[in-house]
Amino acid sequence: MSSLPGTAAGRVTLVGAGPGDAELLTLKAVKALQSADVILFDDLVSDEVLELARREAKRMLVGKRAGRDSCRQEDINVMMLTLAKQGKHVVRLKSGDPMIFGRAGEEIASLEAEGIPVSVVPGITAGLALASRLGVSLTHRDHAQSVRFVTGHSRKGDLPEGLDWQGLADSRTTTVFYMARRMLPKIVEKLGAFGMSAATPTTVAINLGRGDEAIWRGPLAELVAAAETMDIDAPTLVAVGDALGVGMMVAAAEDEWRRAG
Amino acid sequence: MSSLPGTAAGRVTLVGAGPGDAELLTLKAVKALQSADVILFDDLVSDEVLELARREAKRMLVGKRAGRDSCRQEDINVMMLTLAKQGKHVVRLKSGDPMIFGRAGEEIASLEAEGIPVSVVPGITAGLALASRLGVSLTHRDHAQSVRFVTGHSRKGDLPEGLDWQGLADSRTTTVFYMARRMLPKIVEKLGAFGMSAATPTTVAINLGRGDEAIWRGPLAELVAAAETMDIDAPTLVAVGDALGVGMMVAAAEDEWRRAG
Repeated sequence: MSSLPGTAAGRVTLVGAGPGDAELLTLKAVKALQSADVILFDDLVSDEVLELARREAKRMLVGKRAGRDSCRQEDINVMMLTLAKQGKHVVRLKSGDPMIFGRAGEEIASLEAEGIPVSVVPGITAGLALASRLGVSLTHRDHAQSVRFVTGHSRKGDLPEGLDWQGLADSRTTTVFYMARRMLPKIVEKLGAFGMSAATPTTVAINLGRGDEAIWRGPLAELVAAAETMDIDAPTLVAVGDALGVGMMVAAAEDEWRRAG
Repeated sequence: MSSLPGTAAGRVTLVGAGPGDAELLTLKAVKALQSADVILFDDLVSDEVLELARREAKRMLVGKRAGRDSCRQEDINVMMLTLAKQGKHVVRLKSGDPMIFGRAGEEIASLEAEGIPVSVVPGITAGLALASRLGVSLTHRDHAQSVRFVTGHSRKGDLPEGLDWQGLADSRTTTVFYMARRMLPKIVEKLGAFGMSAATPTTVAINLGRGDEAIWRGPLAELVAAAETMDIDAPTLVAVGDALGVGMMVAAAEDEWRRAG
C-alpha cells in the first residue's frame, strides 16, 4: 500500500480524545499527539487535551457540531489525504472514542482507497465516562444484562429511523443516547409509548468531564423538564435504565472525582 | 461519610486496565497505580500494566475466571474494606472498563455502606479496543445506528435469560458479546433462529492487545468453526453485525497497530 508515490512517509492516526479531561487520554493517544505534524480536531476536543500535543504540531479545527457551520466530511477527507501525501503524520483527534458515532468509517475508507496507512487509538467514550463519574455499573448483574449506545438523531436531524423502540423501552438494558438533546422530548415520548415506566431511572449530563459539567439524575417522567434547565448548546448525554438507579450519590462522586488517582 | 473511625485516610479507586496493552491505560489510571498502597487485580490484567504501578505497592491477584477457582466476590469486598479501614489507598484494577461486566456495582455498594470513599477511573473496554484494532466503526452510518455490549453467559454459566434475541438478530445493530466462548454455538443458533443471515459479518478475537492475540473475520455461518480452532481458555470477544464488514484489512491493521503513535 505504501508503495504509491509520495505516500512513503505520510500516515494518519485517528485518536480518541475522551470526554474532555486530559487525564482520560490513553498513553498511546498522548504518544500520537507528541509525534504529530498536523492535528485536525473536532470542536468538542478540549484545550487541555490539545496542550498535550507536540509544540510544533499545527492544530486545525475541523469540528462539526449540530446546528452550526463546519467543514464538510468530504473536505476533512481531502485535507487528511493531502497532508498525508505531503509526508506528514496527521492526527485526526476526535472527542470520545473514534469508532462510535465519529464517521471514522468514512475517513478510513477514503484514506485506504488512496493507500495511506491508517491506525486508530481508542478513547474513553462518553457513555463510559458518565458511568465512572456516577459510580454506576452499566451492566449491574441485578439490573441489566446489556448496555447500548444509540445516536439521538438521524442524518437529517430527526429521530433515527428503524430503531428498535420495543427493545430500547426495556429498562433492563441500559441505553445511552448520544447527541440526544434536540430529539429528547420525542425520544421520551417513544419510550413511554413502548411501555417504559415513567419511574425508570435516568440521567442527563452536559459538558461531561469539563469545568462546566452538570449532571441530573431522576425518573423518566422528569427528564425532559430537567434537561430544559440546562444549556441547550452543550454536548448532552442521556442514559436510561434500571441500572441508573444504583451507584454513588452525585455529590460524593463529584468530591471523589477531583481527588481520583 | 469519611467521619467514621478509621476511614479518614483510606480510600478505594476502581481502575480500568483496558484490554492488555499498557499504552491503552489512561493517564489517570497510571496516576492511581502510582499512588496505590495495595493493588487488587483480576487475572486478565497483564504484567505490563502491573509494571506501571508504584514499586512499593503490594500486588494481590483476586481474579475470577470462568471455570477456575478464584476469590469469591464477597471475599474481595471484605479485603477492600479491611485495607481501606487500615488507611490504605486500595486500587481495584479490572481489565477493560470497570463499569461493564465487572461487578463494580456490588463493590461500590459494599464500600459506600461502610463509608469508604470510592472513585472510578474508566478504561478502554474490549469492544472498543477491537473496533480500533480492526478499523471498524461500530456505528458506521451506512450500517448501524447503535452498538450493544452483551454478556455471553448468565450467573449460572448458561445463556443469559431474558435477552432480546429479536433485537440482537438485527444485523443493523452492532453487537459485541463479552465472555462468549463457551456459549458461542448456542448464541449463533439463537441468532439464526431469530432470522439473522448466515452471511452477516462477524469477528472473533482472543487475547486482544496481547502478544498472543488472534483475530478471525468472516460470515456468521463460519464463526463457530473458526472459534473452535482458537485457544478455548483465552479471553474471547465476539462481534456481529453489518458494520463488521467494513474496516481495514486485519493484516494492514496489524502492521499499523505496531507503529501506532
